[in-house]
Amino acid sequence: MPFHRFYCSANLYTKEEKQAIARSITNLYALVPLPRFYVVVNFIEVGQDDCYVSGEQHAKFLRIHVQHLARNLQTVEEKRVFLANYEKAIAPYTKDKGIDWELQVSNEDPAFWNWNGISPPPFGSEPFQMWMKVNKPVEWAEEVLQE
Amino acid sequence: MPFHRFYCSANLYTKEEKQAIARSITNLYALVPLPRFYVVVNFIEVGQDDCYVSGEQHAKFLRIHVQHLARNLQTVEEKRVFLANYEKAIAPYTKDKGIDWELQVSNEDPAFWNWNGISPPPFGSEPFQMWMKVNKPVEWAEEVLQE
Amino acid sequence: MPFHRFYCSANLYTKEEKQAIARSITNLYALVPLPRFYVVVNFIEVGQDDCYVSGEQHAKFLRIHVQHLARNLQTVEEKRVFLANYEKAIAPYTKDKGIDWELQVSNEDPAFWNWNGISPPPFGSEPFQMWMKVNKPVEWAEEVLQE
Repeated sequence: MPFHRFYCSANLYTKEEKQAIARSITNLYALVPLPRFYVVVNFIEVGQDDCYVSGEQHAKFLRIHVQHLARNLQTVEEKRVFLANYEKAIAPYTKDKGIDWELQVSNEDPAFWNWNGISPPPFGSEPFQMWMKVNKPVEWAEEVLQE
Repeated sequence: MPFHRFYCSANLYTKEEKQAIARSITNLYALVPLPRFYVVVNFIEVGQDDCYVSGEQHAKFLRIHVQHLARNLQTVEEKRVFLANYEKAIAPYTKDKGIDWELQVSNEDPAFWNWNGISPPPFGSEPFQMWMKVNKPVEWAEEVLQE
Repeated sequence: MPFHRFYCSANLYTKEEKQAIARSITNLYALVPLPRFYVVVNFIEVGQDDCYVSGEQHAKFLRIHVQHLARNLQTVEEKRVFLANYEKAIAPYTKDKGIDWELQVSNEDPAFWNWNGISPPPFGSEPFQMWMKVNKPVEWAEEVLQE
């Protein structure tokens, strides 16, 4: 669900740091709770000649683009709380490293989304609990929920 | 128009498979009908150290982000039908290969979009028919449509 | 703020051209006026086997995805004017080079956005003027604005 694209300067993070960042972020969503496999993190390394801030090259920059699907936060207050928690989770790899970074989240449409070809069940429903438990998508019957 | 970003594990697809996927998807939109050149597909390969699902590396994963512009589907029913057709078109490269994959579509704003510097004509209009026929953008006068 | 992803064919632009494109775009936003550091441009090179238009490989293609946050244009007229100015800024690297290209802008949610962990101040406010002046994010107190 939440798809996290980390556009980062080349060699900004080691393999171990990338792994640690992905775990930190996944733990955030596990608290909601959401199935852990919903959290997808992709690092996209951007070379120095390919990254510009203020119109100038920047060699230590990170731009995070997050897409939310399963749970769309609506109020400004909810959004700020979420961002604060996210910033805390990545602080060892951003603020503490002295880099510049930008974090941005987009609410996307859960009806326009499939996992392994299956429409994810409504938050909290019985099939949702199953997805949580087995940590992977399993077939479920939409009609059952509508009865 | 529809811009398809395939974030896929490195070496998940051969060059021939990529070509076949792009054709399959393009054929879907040609049925709407939309000009074939509206369909843009980019494969972005993500190395094993750069792709995490559940906080763990995943070496056979595909995350598809589609942006729709020319035709924005509105109802849940329309969206589900579209996703079902899309899944069918890519099944030989997803389900049949035993990978994990996620498909997600965003409706975007057609007024905030240009092709070769030109605002695409309204769906079904005379200049639109011309774009279909020659399969490329050609200058057209907005005033003509408003007369 | 505005995050510009240039998905371009590999070797379409030299390092000098990329620098020039980034400056041209940054100048556009400086006229609004917005802080220059709000403008982030990333070039993402897409190899010939990875880029398809009409279902066929395309070796001279550019797909621009822009995300707006600080200033969301609302009317069709405003959007068209903005696109016209943007097209003018990049014309030496698009129309004048004989490539095919697509430009598309998405309005995103400014409340769901941080720069160096800080929520950017409202457009035109006193702290906003400070961000403009020093061209970097500095801590500011939201309460001050609400007094």
